[in-house]
Amino acid sequence: MNTITPRTLKGFRDFLPEDMKVRQRVIALFRQVFESFGYEPLETPTLEHADILLGKYGEEAEKLIYQFEDRGGRKVAMKYDLTVPTCRVVAQYGDKIPLPFKRYQIQPVWRADNTQKGRFREFFQCDADTIGSSSMLADAEFIQMGLEIMKKLGFTDYYARINNRKFIDGLVQYAGATSEQFYAICIAIDKLEKIGLEGVIGEMEKKGVSAEVIKKIIEVVSLKGTNIELIEKLTKMMVNIPIAQEGLSELSTIFSYLKTAQIPDELYTFDLSIIRGLSYYTGPVWEFTVRDGGVGSVAGCGRYDKLVGLYLGRDVPATGGSFGIERLFEVIKERGLLKDEANKLELVTIFSSDLVQQSLALVNTLRNQGKSVMLYPDEKAKLEKQLKYANKKNIETVYILGPEEIANKQVKIKNMKTGEQTVAKLSR
Amino acid sequence: MNTITPRTLKGFRDFLPEDMKVRQRVIALFRQVFESFGYEPLETPTLEHADILLGKYGEEAEKLIYQFEDRGGRKVAMKYDLTVPTCRVVAQYGDKIPLPFKRYQIQPVWRADNTQKGRFREFFQCDADTIGSSSMLADAEFIQMGLEIMKKLGFTDYYARINNRKFIDGLVQYAGATSEQFYAICIAIDKLEKIGLEGVIGEMEKKGVSAEVIKKIIEVVSLKGTNIELIEKLTKMMVNIPIAQEGLSELSTIFSYLKTAQIPDELYTFDLSIIRGLSYYTGPVWEFTVRDGGVGSVAGCGRYDKLVGLYLGRDVPATGGSFGIERLFEVIKERGLLKDEANKLELVTIFSSDLVQQSLALVNTLRNQGKSVMLYPDEKAKLEKQLKYANKKNIETVYILGPEEIANKQVKIKNMKTGEQTVAKLSR
Repeated sequence: MNTITPRTLKGFRDFLPEDMKVRQRVIALFRQVFESFGYEPLETPTLEHADILLGKYGEEAEKLIYQFEDRGGRKVAMKYDLTVPTCRVVAQYGDKIPLPFKRYQIQPVWRADNTQKGRFREFFQCDADTIGSSSMLADAEFIQMGLEIMKKLGFTDYYARINNRKFIDGLVQYAGATSEQFYAICIAIDKLEKIGLEGVIGEMEKKGVSAEVIKKIIEVVSLKGTNIELIEKLTKMMVNIPIAQEGLSELSTIFSYLKTAQIPDELYTFDLSIIRGLSYYTGPVWEFTVRDGGVGSVAGCGRYDKLVGLYLGRDVPATGGSFGIERLFEVIKERGLLKDEANKLELVTIFSSDLVQQSLALVNTLRNQGKSVMLYPDEKAKLEKQLKYANKKNIETVYILGPEEIANKQVKIKNMKTGEQTVAKLSR
Repeated sequence: MNTITPRTLKGFRDFLPEDMKVRQRVIALFRQVFESFGYEPLETPTLEHADILLGKYGEEAEKLIYQFEDRGGRKVAMKYDLTVPTCRVVAQYGDKIPLPFKRYQIQPVWRADNTQKGRFREFFQCDADTIGSSSMLADAEFIQMGLEIMKKLGFTDYYARINNRKFIDGLVQYAGATSEQFYAICIAIDKLEKIGLEGVIGEMEKKGVSAEVIKKIIEVVSLKGTNIELIEKLTKMMVNIPIAQEGLSELSTIFSYLKTAQIPDELYTFDLSIIRGLSYYTGPVWEFTVRDGGVGSVAGCGRYDKLVGLYLGRDVPATGGSFGIERLFEVIKERGLLKDEANKLELVTIFSSDLVQQSLALVNTLRNQGKSVMLYPDEKAKLEKQLKYANKKNIETVYILGPEEIANKQVKIKNMKTGEQTVAKLSR
């Protein structure tokens, strides 16, 4: 066999045990909370017929899709996101998937993106959506669920920022802007947190939005108050704008459901600056922002009542969101959150080759107690080498079973971090 | 958007919730047992530089590798198995992966295989291996682990069938066969269970093995006795064949470790007919056979001391195996094993739109009790429609909260399978 330099492709990663353990814990947590809220798991293939994916994401995105001809001459493409495959599934299985369909999907996707931007070409997405429900219950439950996930991940300072696309439509009408200016205004407001009020004004001026329109928009965007106060004020201000009324009423319904679910007021806020870039949102939109150490937004969510219908040929309302799970893996690893102390790997050493059977018996006793434990798999290795190995692998707890311990029906337990040694009775 | 027929590629599958739940449970069980035995998780990318994979599997296999040029003109290939990527990882990370490395990997692989044979082009593999240990402890622990997995999967009649390639080498020498006849003899013995002794004789005759050689082989293969008796008899018979002695001694060591691990005798057997097709095995080889309903062999395992070295340029002993997890998913689904009654999806209905808040409060109470529960996400749907939905989704437990129940601080619980209705106190 010829020698080949072992290496990974740019933008692709191996996950060694240390990383894998964090990833598995985070994924298990998402699964558990998703399922407790009645979302059910779905997985779709890595490869799809190319025509299923093409024409769905826009020209720029399409350039990033991995596609090729398979050995049978079929044009195939690698999964680019989880939304399009889910739409395909809903269209394909008919009655096998009764609507409303609450599904979650945690799988890798592939994008031939520029890796200089710190982006990966293979990364996990983590979506949960309710397809076939126009009720604000579906939106409110998702918001509640997202907050629970943030809590369970170990964050302490987080909240949901909620807006409604219908209200933004209404705001643009209220301000007297043209429909051509709609996106310019949205993009400007979306940057509010980053560039401040002055910045937003500047952005709109640059796009040729008139001073009068800008004034009205800023007047609204600068309003202060509790969620309920804001809704009351805006409902009065926009009394003649049906689409704004509709949006505000939806928000009001969501807030009432969150109250029933006993979500503390400070965990969610009506935030006029949340627009969400994607053009397919049609109703409530929200993000989850983690303030602990400036993590920032960790999920983009909202209602998209017109998208699924494009695949099905009939209108199917839908709402849900996507958690930035790769970012969460990183943050949780960095901060040492979600550590599973109970399930840490431990090592049983082999004192000498004539004492193998004793160590083997011990490792089985420990496993029966629910521990994850490795028996050093070399009966000829010196104890020193085995302890060094434990250190290299950051194994904290090491068991030593020499002739003296065996004679006394004991086992020596060494903490490799502190160097502390204790002795325990051998129980069989 | 143009209409496109929703469909999956031949050999690729969607996993809808019912299947996914089985798959997740099986995978979680494997992870749990693997980790309890000190194997740690590893994942490698879907795409590799093609040269990493090519030249590793033989010509026939290579035709099945999905490969293409990516947008940067790199030759890339989709993962074909889990062994080669693991070898690459061990070669690539050096000290970051101290040996012995006990790793498991549960990921999909891709093969452009003939789907007529009931094969899939995307399927999961499930491997666990100890790399960097020549001790029989590593083999014995794997056997113990496999038996524990069979038990936890819910099988009742299963056992490990163990042999040793070194012993087979010795047998061929003992019988006086030429080294050219080695594989023909192995292939014949491997079929013992299927075609019987007569069949094995016929196969060998066809390959031109002499009557004298056949006689000696059959004499050995037909030996009966306990594991220990067989080893004793064979040790005497082949006293002058060092490689046979080595193989028998290794088996004897493994059996002594299994005894220490308190594995009942009937769960493992020295089975001379286990050869394992792959040419890279060098020592103990074994399979796990499930007799319940004729499931058959569910894992192929063995020691391969020469394979990893090919990638590293130095000898690295290794042992482990691959569980046929796709087959296990199917069998476990068919038999309804591993059902997680505690975590079954339940449905809270909405009696009428003015009683939404009460149902929302109930769903939160149930979730806090650890249940997976869906609130029907449509406050305008008739109760009848909601019950129909529960039936379609095979949801067994449905909660109904009408004005009467609310007045009595109760909730009606309907079992959709039996039709039975009970009433419980509403606790908040």
